Amino acid sequence: MALETLRWEDDALVILDQTELPFRKTEKRLATAEEVREAIGALRVRGAPAIGVAAAYGLCLELRLWRGKSPAPSTAWEEARRGADSLASVRPTAVNLRWALDRMLRALEDAFTKDADLWASLEAEARRIHEEDRAMCAAIGRHGAALLQEGDTVLTHCNAGALATSGIGTALAPVYEAARQGRKISVISDETRPLLQGSRLTAFELREAGIPVTVICDAAAASMLAAGRADLVIVGADRIAANGDFANKVGTLGVAVLAKEYGVPFYCAAPSSTIDLTTPNGAEIPIEERAAEEVTRGFGRPTAPDGVAAFNPAFDVTPAKFVAGFITERGVLRPPFEDSLRRALRPATHAPPPLALPGK
Amino acid sequence: MALETLRWEDDALVILDQTELPFRKTEKRLATAEEVREAIGALRVRGAPAIGVAAAYGLCLELRLWRGKSPAPSTAWEEARRGADSLASVRPTAVNLRWALDRMLRALEDAFTKDADLWASLEAEARRIHEEDRAMCAAIGRHGAALLQEGDTVLTHCNAGALATSGIGTALAPVYEAARQGRKISVISDETRPLLQGSRLTAFELREAGIPVTVICDAAAASMLAAGRADLVIVGADRIAANGDFANKVGTLGVAVLAKEYGVPFYCAAPSSTIDLTTPNGAEIPIEERAAEEVTRGFGRPTAPDGVAAFNPAFDVTPAKFVAGFITERGVLRPPFEDSLRRALRPATHAPPPLALPGK
Repeated sequence: MALETLRWEDDALVILDQTELPFRKTEKRLATAEEVREAIGALRVRGAPAIGVAAAYGLCLELRLWRGKSPAPSTAWEEARRGADSLASVRPTAVNLRWALDRMLRALEDAFTKDADLWASLEAEARRIHEEDRAMCAAIGRHGAALLQEGDTVLTHCNAGALATSGIGTALAPVYEAARQGRKISVISDETRPLLQGSRLTAFELREAGIPVTVICDAAAASMLAAGRADLVIVGADRIAANGDFANKVGTLGVAVLAKEYGVPFYCAAPSSTIDLTTPNGAEIPIEERAAEEVTRGFGRPTAPDGVAAFNPAFDVTPAKFVAGFITERGVLRPPFEDSLRRALRPATHAPPPLALPGK
Repeated sequence: MALETLRWEDDALVILDQTELPFRKTEKRLATAEEVREAIGALRVRGAPAIGVAAAYGLCLELRLWRGKSPAPSTAWEEARRGADSLASVRPTAVNLRWALDRMLRALEDAFTKDADLWASLEAEARRIHEEDRAMCAAIGRHGAALLQEGDTVLTHCNAGALATSGIGTALAPVYEAARQGRKISVISDETRPLLQGSRLTAFELREAGIPVTVICDAAAASMLAAGRADLVIVGADRIAANGDFANKVGTLGVAVLAKEYGVPFYCAAPSSTIDLTTPNGAEIPIEERAAEEVTRGFGRPTAPDGVAAFNPAFDVTPAKFVAGFITERGVLRPPFEDSLRRALRPATHAPPPLALPGK
């Protein structure tokens, strides 16, 4: 891919600032955990898999004073824990963020146990998470591409593409892979208000890759699906509950209900790290509410009169009954999801987070 | 109402320029038919009932040289006809536009027959259409208010309020009337991309009227309805086919499908002039496609990368099966609509347009 969402370079996280896309390709060098937190909160780096990777590097930056030193175990553990919690709290819905940070804490626990270099162990784990993310995208692409036939049109919502990961994306990975295999695939991209990830990011990265894409207003998806203009829907996910309900960008639920009404297969593509067996169902997924100004003052100028209330949930929950399958790096999971999701997580991706202080 | 969508004054049509709302209340004086056409095309005046009234006055302006004169019947009829066709062609979906112009032509035919003053007859008919529109809104308000209970929240899409008519609106008329009767009613307004009639116009006129309104992105309507945050949906219509399928602002279909899925009653409020018995079903309603730039360059700046295609249908068609009732000035019509719509049009509102040249 020409576009690199993020890279780790000279002990800093370098990101493509996605708030500037598609108009400027601005790289931003994040040298502190605070800068990583700001970038995740402001959606300069976004997409569940990408923010997992970014947060892992963010924890390295949080603890960068450890580099080449041996911090005292009594305070070090608490410090790491606090840093992870602080990074995880920025965006509560995507489970990949917590998942990546828990992996970092387990790596730290392991390093304590083995008396290894703590910071070097953390950095190595962040690099592993990053590398696995790339491989995960490629695998999702291979499994998902098998669902796409010559000439198919895929409707997607938001951006679960290369820019949402450090590889070729999740929802768009099957499109890229099918195109690589020589099939002609087109995409209809919901613009995805309020922040326009569909028109700004999905349209941008597909155009860069030479894949035909048509942008529509979110509200036009209904008549597109009713008219049979999409052969299937593929979206990403920020958290998949144990029963197969999943959270994704607000508006995903509407597309799912419409896809069911009009008989269009509806798929969700996500790494198994998005599956959260500790969340029994969608009702338990916390939904991030973002500033009303994203709705009332979008696009750099007012879009609603002063003094009018706006409600701006960033996500919604799609019940499992609308999902034809989850495209993961371990294959396409089919209903009943209680079984298939659980099997996909063996060995458990979500091991319990470390609880004991080493040395205590 | 504090807001006057349009008025006829000193032989000109004065409109509140809705492209400037809610940020500037600019009145625009339209002194020629060409200016009326431009204003309808650019949505300076919009809403099916309002553009019907505007077009009727527009025809008066088209034929203003007749004023105080007796144009030759041989050319006058053709001239009127051409003027009406030209005004009607600006927006093909709303049937009220054609309906109002057909009424004007029938009034002209009548004036020919009675040897009355042609221009004075046209102006009188335009004033009648205008006055009837106001009364129609009030009647829709009375019938619709009976559906609303203390504390109800109504979800609406686009603007079918005072600004879409010359009275208190269609979809919002029941809200205004219930509020007038002392009930506490709230509104959730979809922002309605691409042109934001929901956040710019519906939110604006409700705020002016002191009715609580919350703006959401169109894509958030799904989770609002799923969570039971709206007690009913009321939208307007641009054309109602004989079987009860109807066209309205793009996105209405999505709301209708969701309302059905989540058991929220879905009503369409429109004057009987919106019923078009000559259109058998929704598939026969022409859907206006507007410029891609409304999607890709909204809000005065680019919202998508250069060179990306966009598809921008202005309307969609909601099948009759999703409609709990049509709130008209003649009462709430219930299924089966083939019967109730036909009965509501007795005597026929859509008499066949005049075909014969008088005097020939």
